[in-house]
Formats: sequence, structure tokens, C-alpha cells
Amino acid sequence: ATDSNISKQLNNLELLAKEKTIANLPLYGIPFAIKDNIDALGWETTAACPDFAFDPKKNATVVQKLLDAGAILIGKTNLDQFATGLVGTRSPYGAVPNTFDPTYVSGGSSSGSASVVARGLVCFSLGTDTAGSGRIPAAFNNIVGTKPTPGLVSTEGVFPACKSIDCVSIMTLTAADAHIVLDVMKSTEVDRIKEAQFHPIPKLVSSFRRPTRIGIPISCQFLDDGQYQKAFAKAIENAKGLDVELVQVDIDPFVKAGKLLYDGPWVSERFAVTENFLNTHPDSFDPSVKQIIQSGASYTAAQGFRAIYQLKELEIETKETWAKCDVILVPSAPNHPTLEDLKNHPILKNSELGMYTNYVNLMRLCAVAVPAGFTEKGMPFGVTLIAQEGSDTALLKLAAQWQILFGLSLGKSEIKAAHSELTISGNNKDIVEIAVVG
Amino acid sequence: ATDSNISKQLNNLELLAKEKTIANLPLYGIPFAIKDNIDALGWETTAACPDFAFDPKKNATVVQKLLDAGAILIGKTNLDQFATGLVGTRSPYGAVPNTFDPTYVSGGSSSGSASVVARGLVCFSLGTDTAGSGRIPAAFNNIVGTKPTPGLVSTEGVFPACKSIDCVSIMTLTAADAHIVLDVMKSTEVDRIKEAQFHPIPKLVSSFRRPTRIGIPISCQFLDDGQYQKAFAKAIENAKGLDVELVQVDIDPFVKAGKLLYDGPWVSERFAVTENFLNTHPDSFDPSVKQIIQSGASYTAAQGFRAIYQLKELEIETKETWAKCDVILVPSAPNHPTLEDLKNHPILKNSELGMYTNYVNLMRLCAVAVPAGFTEKGMPFGVTLIAQEGSDTALLKLAAQWQILFGLSLGKSEIKAAHSELTISGNNKDIVEIAVVG
Repeated sequence: ATDSNISKQLNNLELLAKEKTIANLPLYGIPFAIKDNIDALGWETTAACPDFAFDPKKNATVVQKLLDAGAILIGKTNLDQFATGLVGTRSPYGAVPNTFDPTYVSGGSSSGSASVVARGLVCFSLGTDTAGSGRIPAAFNNIVGTKPTPGLVSTEGVFPACKSIDCVSIMTLTAADAHIVLDVMKSTEVDRIKEAQFHPIPKLVSSFRRPTRIGIPISCQFLDDGQYQKAFAKAIENAKGLDVELVQVDIDPFVKAGKLLYDGPWVSERFAVTENFLNTHPDSFDPSVKQIIQSGASYTAAQGFRAIYQLKELEIETKETWAKCDVILVPSAPNHPTLEDLKNHPILKNSELGMYTNYVNLMRLCAVAVPAGFTEKGMPFGVTLIAQEGSDTALLKLAAQWQILFGLSLGKSEIKAAHSELTISGNNKDIVEIAVVG
Repeated sequence: ATDSNISKQLNNLELLAKEKTIANLPLYGIPFAIKDNIDALGWETTAACPDFAFDPKKNATVVQKLLDAGAILIGKTNLDQFATGLVGTRSPYGAVPNTFDPTYVSGGSSSGSASVVARGLVCFSLGTDTAGSGRIPAAFNNIVGTKPTPGLVSTEGVFPACKSIDCVSIMTLTAADAHIVLDVMKSTEVDRIKEAQFHPIPKLVSSFRRPTRIGIPISCQFLDDGQYQKAFAKAIENAKGLDVELVQVDIDPFVKAGKLLYDGPWVSERFAVTENFLNTHPDSFDPSVKQIIQSGASYTAAQGFRAIYQLKELEIETKETWAKCDVILVPSAPNHPTLEDLKNHPILKNSELGMYTNYVNLMRLCAVAVPAGFTEKGMPFGVTLIAQEGSDTALLKLAAQWQILFGLSLGKSEIKAAHSELTISGNNKDIVEIAVVG
């Protein structure tokens, strides 16, 4: 942010402080950053494509809500161009280095948003997460990545990737912080009246049953030298210290749905929103991004509808899984590629990364990526807790308990949080729904 | 139905009567018919395409529910092939004549289902209604056509037209009868677990505010010699006798959405489910149906997604309309073509008919087509009451009041119903939802 922009925000904050009580300014003075595919007034939106850049006419709905709650926007962050990538290397502004070892990828597409939180430059940041773009970089940088249920948070003022399933995600050091930010960001009925809606408002579940039933995949595929498998086994072992019951579940129907996203017609959504620009500016794209987006031109509408039908059939199969557990625990990624790996296999090494993340939005689930220790090489290892639509708060509470139990240092720092800083307080936001039938 | 089939059903009914109380058999002994794109065990499903016919392995969910409630299936009914039409002429089994004048179309695609109810052969019938296929033939035969909110009634075991928005519809002489049948047909959570779901279960609204605000289109297009315009004006005048407040509303965004359905990529859904059969049996189709279904091959997935985006933008515009009224009142059709008209213009005269019906499922609305008098030529004229998702019961109660006020003869008969037969009783099924926040 420029000095004048910050001054303006501080002036505005003073005005807010006169109008509102401090309880209505839960983010008073808190600095944050947003991914550069999210509109903020006074800042160009580039989507990591300089020739595409435009001056937005207003703040994205979520940005406005954060500013209204007293937060200070101090920067916009680098990303995989048009949010098309899970690596953080597909940007003309440069690859974002991993905060732990610059020879590894940061993860993406919300690469910069993960980096600035892991490095402690801001208290929180916004990313977007269509296929894993919030969860993967969170995992690779030892932070918490919260991917809300589709429909819970507005995407108005976000340049679309797959418009029908895009989500704004939150990067924080702790689940407790994410809980506060998410509470501010939630869409209201008033917001929704003025915005295109692809999903209903989910019914919110504030807590899981105790003990919470955690589904562990019967088998997990890893694509590295064995480090991730070990790290995941250790994480599961540790998780037994929570008030949970571990049950084995089959995640096959989820993984199949995930393949529909990247090997199927949803990529046509990326093409649908960039086609005109692609025709007029064919040389303005990152080569990998261009290749992927262009592949979206080849699908027919019939293929698109058939993929939707397949997805709905797979959802039936997943209901058996959800009958057995409240939460599914998966590794956030199957491996952690280096920048060198990406140079050699720019498409393959990227697409591998979505194995445990791709299906989540298609199935209207919510997810929280949470740090789960380190590999023998000293790189962060993360897992993702996934639950059915509307379980966002319950999931963040579980993630908070996870962080208390694991007691890891936060982000790139050596700092460990106090128990109180990791705790999500009580039931004051619970909603009790009573159906009187008679 | 064959004698043996009926005997079997009667035997089954005796068993049911031993197992259940009569209160749990609300349709005990009631004869009904179903459109021949809905599966019933022991009956071929033809979809009005003999070469496509197959023996279903089980009853459609809705048929099972009706049988379980004591109803007796006595026949399957003719339709526009693959439910692709609004006229009732596109069938190798012959055009269904209008019950009032055989030179006029019956309306379709649920042509036979409307005819058998209007003629008093059954107490109720099932149709399907994707773009108006239940409402148009109801209007043309002086009966009630109920098109539930998408998601309220299962479509499992129904051969799809546009799978993502298909609805099973109900044909009855009275809204009161439809209310009883719909109550039996509603999907439960248990049904839903085993079936593909394109829509959430709508929250049910049991009554509208009094006086109910009825939205009348600022302008309505009619495509005939003026008879329909007069009939609609008279219906509006009569409607003032209800406990309603008439308000003018702009239905333009609805009509625009309707155009997306027939001039847009949703036709690719029809192609997606018949493509294989079309490739192997190109000569087994009605020529008009084939032409329409084949047009679904030409859309790209990007066009499909863009149409969905447009639809969502139009939905924002409709919210202004819904802020002003509880129900929208439209003519069910803009005209009533003759069989001769259809011969001369088989595609055009069909597509004109969807003007007031096409948009309803795309926007997840519910609708009840209700008789509203007769034209000067003595043909039935119908209107459709449309409301937001989940207002099905409220809408049927309004339709019942409408029928009491109008006092028309039922179907093709000279019989007028008694007040008590037209009344939907009280509030015993109301659901009160209380949200306790604090």
C-alpha cells in the first residue's frame, strides 16, 4: 500500500471508531493482504496478468466487510495467473519461493497470500480456492488455510476461475484467527440479494458430536520418496490424542469426482471468462496457464452436463462415507515439488498436487488445511480436515483443538502460541433450529 | 392395465390395509395414470419411442410412494416423444386430441395425462414438466397442473428430458386433490440419500401473507386473435374477489431466462441422455423431436457455463419482482394452436407456447396452472400461479381459493365441485421454524 492509501484507511478507521462500538470492529487495526484476483478500490486487479489489469469500481464484498470491521489492507499478493495453478510459479511477477526453503514451491495459486502470513507480514490474508488454491500453499508454508462451504462467503468482486464453484479462502497462523475473520466475512441475506448465487446459504453446524468420528482413508496415494507417507502416519498417530474416534473410510468416490474437475469440462469455466481476452491477447499468458485454459474450448455442453450427472452419482456414494464419519482427514498434498521439478514438468507436477483437494468444492464441502508437523527434510507437512456443507465453524473448532494438541511453531516463525490464543470460545454464536410439526 | 396387473395391485392393497391404518393410506383405492416416461414395474417405459422401450427394474420413487399410499395404477399415457414438446402431437402413437375440440392440440408433453384427468378416467395422473409440459396441457384441458419446486419430488425412475431441472407434475381436477397427492409424493431424507440430487430440499411455506400480493405482468404478449388477451383480463378482474392485492410487476427477466432454456445450451441435456440411442437408431425419432435433440450437440461447455452465469444475473433482477409480490399470475400459454397450425409450423408453434412456462424450473420456482374460464370459442383458458421455491403448499391453497371463487365446471365434465371438495384444510402440516441466536 502507498502511504496515502494507508493514511486514507487510517482516517476511515477513526470515523468507524466514532460510529461503532469496538465490539462491532472485531478487526480494528488488523493488517491484511489479499490475492490479486480480488478487487480493492484504489488497487489494480491484475490476476497476475499485467495486460489484463483493470481498476475495479468497488471493493469485493468480502474486502468491504473486512474494512468495515476495522481491518487495514496493506497489500495485494502474487498468484498463479488467473488462479490457474497449485504451485505458485505461474506468474510474470516471479515464482513465489517457499518460506522454508526457496528451492521448493510455495504452492498456489494463493502463493503470495500464504507467504505473507507465514512470514508474519500480516495477521491474515485472503486467497481463493477452487481446486485447492488455498489449502495447498497453506500446507506448504505451515499455516492454516480455511476453505469455506460454497455459498457461505461472497465471491462478488473476485475474478473467476470456475465461477460456479469458486470460494474465497482465509490464510491465518491459527484456526482461532480464521474463525474471527470468517465470522466477519460471511454473506448476509442482504448481500445475497444483490449478487449472483450459485449455492444456497448452508445451514451452519457449530460443533461435531463428541467423540468426533474422523474418517481416515483406507489407502492414500503419495508421490514422493516416502516422507509424506511417514508424516501422515505420524499425524494420524498424534490425532488420537484428540477427543475423536478414528474410522476407516473409502475416499475413492471423492477422488473420482476430483478427476472430473481437472480432466473434465469444468475447465471450460476458465475458458468462458477469459475467451475474449485470449483472442485479443494470446501472448499475454503464462504458457502453462494458456495451455490449460485453451483446453476448456474443446468440451461440449453435453459433456459438461454428463459430468454433472456423474458428479451427482458419485455424491450418492459419498453418503455412505458421511454416514460413518463427521470429518475426513487427508494429506493436503501427495508430495511437495521443487521449483526444478516444475521446470521439468510444468503441467504434470501441478496436476498431481490436487489429488486431495480437487473434489471439495464440486461436492459443496468445507475444509481446513492445518499444519501437522515436518518431514525429515524439515519441510512443513499439512493435513486437511474436510466436512459436509455448513460445518465450517465445527471444523475450525476441531482445527483449533488440533493446533493445541500438536503445539507446533506458527508459520515460518519459532513462536508457539499460548493455549488461550489457539482456543475458539464457546457456543455464543450457535444457532438452534427448532422445527415444530403439528 | 391388464386384468392380472389390476388383480395383483388389489391383492397388494388388501395386504397394505392389514399393515397400515387407513390414515396411512390416503389414496386407498384411488385410480391414477402416469406419463409413459415414468417407470412402473410390469409396464414398459417407451417415452413415446417404441424402439427405445425397456422394462424397468423397479418403480419410479414417486410411483412407489403412490402405490404405498393405496393408489391403483390403471394406465400409462401418451406424450410428446422424450418429453420434447408442448403440443401433444409428437408421438408415433398419434396426436392426443384436445378434450374440448379435437381440432385443437391437447398440449404436451404430458398430453395423455391431461386428457385422462379431464375426461374423468382417473382421479389424478402424473406428468413431467421441464419447460411447461405439465402446465400447458392442464391449461388446454381445463384442469389443475401442479409443478412442484425442483427438489421437492424425486425424479428417480423418470427418463430425463433436462435432467438437472426436470420435475414430476400432478394433474387433477382440483387443487385440493393435488395437495393430497403432493403430500404423498414428497421426497424424504431417506429417499434422497439413495438418489442423485440436483437441488436441495426446499423450505416449505404453508401460507402466504393476507392479503396475498399477486404480481400482474406490466405487459403480456399474446399470439392469437385477441381471445386470450380478453380471457386474461377477465381472469384478473375476477381474481380481485380473492383476499389479494394486485400489483404490477416486470416479468422481463423471467422471460429472458426462459429463452435461455429453449434457445440455449440446456437442450444439450436432451442430447446428452439420448446421444447413444440417436447414433444407433437415427430413424426411430419423431422428426421435430430429432431436430431439437440434435441441436443440443452443437453447444460448447463454455456456452453452457455462460448461460448459467446469465441465468444467475437474471435471478438478481427477479429479486426486485419478488420483493413486491408473493405470487406472479401469468397466462399459462400465449395462444392455443390447432393441429393444423402444428402441421404447418411444427417447431415454431410449439416453441411459442413456452413463453410463460420455460423459466420456472431454471429459477427453481413452483407453479400451479389453474383453469380461469373459457374463450369466446368455448375453449378452456388457463392461468399459472408462480411462487418462489418451497411455496408449493401456499400456492395450492391459493389455487383452491381461486377454484372456489371461479366456480368452473371440472375438466371436460359439466360438474361443479362443492365448496368442501375444493377446500384445503387448515394448518395441520405447517412447519414453524424458530432460529434462536444468542
